[in-house]
Amino acid sequence: VRLSYHLLQFQVLLYVFILVDLSLALFEEPAVFALPTWATMLVELLCLIVFTIRLIHYAKVIPRDKFWKDPKNICIIVILGLTMVDMIIYGALKASNCRAVRWSRVLRPLLLVNVTEGRQLRRAFRSIRNALPQIFYVFLLFMFSLLIFSLMALKLLGKRGLKTIDGAPYFTNYLEIVFDLYVLVTTANSPDVMMPAYNASTGFAIFFILYILINTYIFMSVFLAVVYNNYKKYLKEEVRQLVRAKRHKMVRAFAVLQEQREEGGEPVVSQANWNQLVRLVQPDLSNAHRELLWSVSDDTNQGCIGKVAFVQLADLLNIEVITLKSRPHPLQGVCPAFYLSAPSRLLCQLVQHRAFVIVYDLIILVNAVFIGLDEENPLISNSEWVFLALYLLEILLKLYVFEPRAFFSRHSFWNWFDTIIVVAALIATIINSAMKSSGDYTSRQILDIVFILRVLRLIRVVDSIKRFRTIINTLIRIGPAILTFGQLIIVVYYIFAMVGMEIFKGKVKFYEADSSDPAKAYCGNPSLKGTPFAQLNYCKNNFNDVVSSFVLLVELTVVNQCSGFTLVTHVSARIYFVLFHIPPFITIIVTIRPQLHIFVAFVLEAFFVEYSVEKSDLQTSLEKKIEEL
Amino acid sequence: VRLSYHLLQFQVLLYVFILVDLSLALFEEPAVFALPTWATMLVELLCLIVFTIRLIHYAKVIPRDKFWKDPKNICIIVILGLTMVDMIIYGALKASNCRAVRWSRVLRPLLLVNVTEGRQLRRAFRSIRNALPQIFYVFLLFMFSLLIFSLMALKLLGKRGLKTIDGAPYFTNYLEIVFDLYVLVTTANSPDVMMPAYNASTGFAIFFILYILINTYIFMSVFLAVVYNNYKKYLKEEVRQLVRAKRHKMVRAFAVLQEQREEGGEPVVSQANWNQLVRLVQPDLSNAHRELLWSVSDDTNQGCIGKVAFVQLADLLNIEVITLKSRPHPLQGVCPAFYLSAPSRLLCQLVQHRAFVIVYDLIILVNAVFIGLDEENPLISNSEWVFLALYLLEILLKLYVFEPRAFFSRHSFWNWFDTIIVVAALIATIINSAMKSSGDYTSRQILDIVFILRVLRLIRVVDSIKRFRTIINTLIRIGPAILTFGQLIIVVYYIFAMVGMEIFKGKVKFYEADSSDPAKAYCGNPSLKGTPFAQLNYCKNNFNDVVSSFVLLVELTVVNQCSGFTLVTHVSARIYFVLFHIPPFITIIVTIRPQLHIFVAFVLEAFFVEYSVEKSDLQTSLEKKIEEL
Repeated sequence: VRLSYHLLQFQVLLYVFILVDLSLALFEEPAVFALPTWATMLVELLCLIVFTIRLIHYAKVIPRDKFWKDPKNICIIVILGLTMVDMIIYGALKASNCRAVRWSRVLRPLLLVNVTEGRQLRRAFRSIRNALPQIFYVFLLFMFSLLIFSLMALKLLGKRGLKTIDGAPYFTNYLEIVFDLYVLVTTANSPDVMMPAYNASTGFAIFFILYILINTYIFMSVFLAVVYNNYKKYLKEEVRQLVRAKRHKMVRAFAVLQEQREEGGEPVVSQANWNQLVRLVQPDLSNAHRELLWSVSDDTNQGCIGKVAFVQLADLLNIEVITLKSRPHPLQGVCPAFYLSAPSRLLCQLVQHRAFVIVYDLIILVNAVFIGLDEENPLISNSEWVFLALYLLEILLKLYVFEPRAFFSRHSFWNWFDTIIVVAALIATIINSAMKSSGDYTSRQILDIVFILRVLRLIRVVDSIKRFRTIINTLIRIGPAILTFGQLIIVVYYIFAMVGMEIFKGKVKFYEADSSDPAKAYCGNPSLKGTPFAQLNYCKNNFNDVVSSFVLLVELTVVNQCSGFTLVTHVSARIYFVLFHIPPFITIIVTIRPQLHIFVAFVLEAFFVEYSVEKSDLQTSLEKKIEEL
Repeated sequence: VRLSYHLLQFQVLLYVFILVDLSLALFEEPAVFALPTWATMLVELLCLIVFTIRLIHYAKVIPRDKFWKDPKNICIIVILGLTMVDMIIYGALKASNCRAVRWSRVLRPLLLVNVTEGRQLRRAFRSIRNALPQIFYVFLLFMFSLLIFSLMALKLLGKRGLKTIDGAPYFTNYLEIVFDLYVLVTTANSPDVMMPAYNASTGFAIFFILYILINTYIFMSVFLAVVYNNYKKYLKEEVRQLVRAKRHKMVRAFAVLQEQREEGGEPVVSQANWNQLVRLVQPDLSNAHRELLWSVSDDTNQGCIGKVAFVQLADLLNIEVITLKSRPHPLQGVCPAFYLSAPSRLLCQLVQHRAFVIVYDLIILVNAVFIGLDEENPLISNSEWVFLALYLLEILLKLYVFEPRAFFSRHSFWNWFDTIIVVAALIATIINSAMKSSGDYTSRQILDIVFILRVLRLIRVVDSIKRFRTIINTLIRIGPAILTFGQLIIVVYYIFAMVGMEIFKGKVKFYEADSSDPAKAYCGNPSLKGTPFAQLNYCKNNFNDVVSSFVLLVELTVVNQCSGFTLVTHVSARIYFVLFHIPPFITIIVTIRPQLHIFVAFVLEAFFVEYSVEKSDLQTSLEKKIEEL
């Protein structure tokens, strides 16, 4: 039972079902692709059953008292229970044609956090939660500064009878000033908000410059500093605890395996026992690799290792050792006379020369210029075939020179990238021209894919410049950390999207460009008539389905200028209705914005760790051993 | 000569003359307050003479070969020479009525960097210069990513015939796309730039979200990380060199002062010599303080100290020791019977009680509400007197309880703040009401000052909350570091303002609000007719004098949206003239923007250093000594 629980297949299956459960939002009311209620309910029920089975499976693996003490298990049970209750209520209400709300949908992303496999995500959540109190005080101080500045603005500018460009009174309402200045912190309304005062008197520029200096630059820097400091502190604490737990477990394992070699001597673990253990833990480890690890542990060649060397085992197994077998090229085996002939060797030397890389970088640059030119010119569109041929030739030449399995090894990111992009571009271009020649019809989708692939090919040039490669490699290595953060963002967005959809669905409608409905001018909502929201054609920024909601939430994260802002700053008598719905918007903004700082802190820390590539002692001793061999 | 060179008075005088030299820009053509050319030239000549005298003075202080090897002296000589040449040419050209440019004005701020006293500023410049190569590579990579995304946008969106809200073609010109996407990085044009594509197809939102994620969040974080990392590295290196130089000098001083106590023993410095040295270096140090320092250095009471203890002297002198003399209250001396009576004692206890602070915090909160209300209501305006009286009472009570010299000690920031604000508010309010009662005329300036002082009073409440106090104190302590950075910003802005004024002066004109000139609608420049620049009433954002230039540069730093942006994004046939002048704008933006990251790195580092208040060993041993006494 225990081993089957940790099987990769089961874990993947679990994530697939979580994904299915989350993506149900696409098909449920308000839907992107509408499905009948019974279908989505059935799928959800299936997911719930899978989660329950997985939980029961987990309960069999670990001791009963531990299972019931762990908050994550309790959370899952509560989520499953509440979802069942909600589904029953919803079904009953629907059957009796009442208005029903599927409120348990906000709980779905929490499954992602609480399944056993979401360890990383839980850790990220914990370090954010731990940093919150400190951040909260800086935020309070920032709010205090905002309120003081707003009060000063009200007193200085409110009575001067100034007008904004729209002719509205300028800085007369305290709450509006607070919101305007809050937006100014994000610099979204930067020159506009100060222009009326600046036009009235140059001196007022001092007020705004001071405000931006203190609140945007100093406070935001302090905010970032505190977030980063706390994040680092708690992350360190977490890592320290993990290391301690690992040590503790290794010591226990040692106690089980130890034996007394000499009377009164230190207890040791024999090589035979050690070998058996490693074979059990990592069955796919090669014999050579295992022996290498043993020789690092048993540095003095005694045939047994003490406690200190044994405890290192876990770290040793984590160090990645790439076995580069210098196998001969398969062509050499098939036809040695040809492959080892003088012209063939000259070709190999040419391909491995620096000039080969430079020539292909130049080809890429020329290609970039050709892409930028108009592709309806037949010369340009035919040149695409030349470039494709050149790229294919490059890959074939490299495959001729290098051993294919080494060329496509797991760590040759750029080789994989190149081959996939070029082959995909070849296929797409062939399909595209086949469709073009078969009829006059050209699929826009296929063409888009061709364009994207063509442009992506250009990225390869980055790999030729050493400094760029360092930065890119660092970015690739911090990728997984960013993905963890991505899951976290999705959890928060999903919850907000669900709530937003229940409150706002259908309030703002989007009409296609060719629609002639007069309601198009005000997004189908009379209270939006004449507002900048409608004038700027923001109608598609709505909560009418889960995709639009996500896009809107991203926009709100990027800049506060969007809906909420435009609606509040240009308050006119007509939009009371919309004003009524502002508080949720502000809540969303205030909740999502600090995440950016956490994200920056996250990237900062990950980048520092990866950028300063320091090798651990263990890695150094492993490398020394390899050199000795 | 040597000592007189380091006199504070001379240093202050030098900075006054630099300030005069810099502020000449206010009076020179294009002027805020016009003065005749001969007047400004005369003042500048005076400044130049002062700088020359100071330089000759410095040359006498240090050895000749050292003087000529130091780049900062060469710089000053070149600046002075070039300025003289420019003044002569300018004078001659003016006399013969030719068009002349005072190009040497851009050199003026460099004096600030190159005078001997600008040590901190030179250090900041150096660490930025050292960090530049690394930053440059990240910037190049960012530009590459920007160009690739722009190319993709051109291919995907250019041929779809989409239109912006203004009806202009959307994403058809490569350079415009690059600029639009560059602005999108700063999130200034966030939803607007993507709306046409998003309205056409939801899928294009993915492109923009990916772009923002990669370029705004990941790249900007990496940029910050690299800037911060480099800044820290070079700062550390600088500090290490400084410490080494200090050590070296102290060792040399020790070699001069040392004497041999015992045969073959370690050389030592006697207490008498040490006392003489300290008296010479810091004549204003109290005897008690000096003895304390000696007892820390001579820990074992031998009457002499070795090399190691002697070298610490410089650090010891830098530790601030606040001598808190618990002097009796002066009233106690004058009238002890009254001051020590039971009611007087009760009053002292009351004022020192926590409740006293809480009561006054509540008064401040009530005051905040009253300030927010309409001051034309006679009840509200009279309540101001009550609050003023309450605040005055608080200060008087505190002065009654605490010894005045302790109350106004150099480190009681909040006591000083309180007293100055309240007394200033009292004076301003009296003047205001006197003017009001004498005639019906109320000076707007006086009233503004009264309002500002009233609101500033409220800040005091921050001191009552311990967490806020920590943050504020940290900010106060990093103040000097931020001021150094402020000088650096001024140097850069001044140079840009000078260049900008020569190129752009008079191109955009500002008309007062009550002007009826038809040219007001297009800022006095026909080529701006109908552009958003004129529509949004940005006419005052110009380079017509040095103050406007500085405000404009701050706006450009904060957000790219301003002039440059609005002009480029909404290119219409009419504004070729303005488009002609875009490149300098972009240069300014590209040059100034990275400074923000440097600023953030600067604050981050200063904040980390101050926030984690760790005491040095020396400080701890000093504290131990004080406790022993």
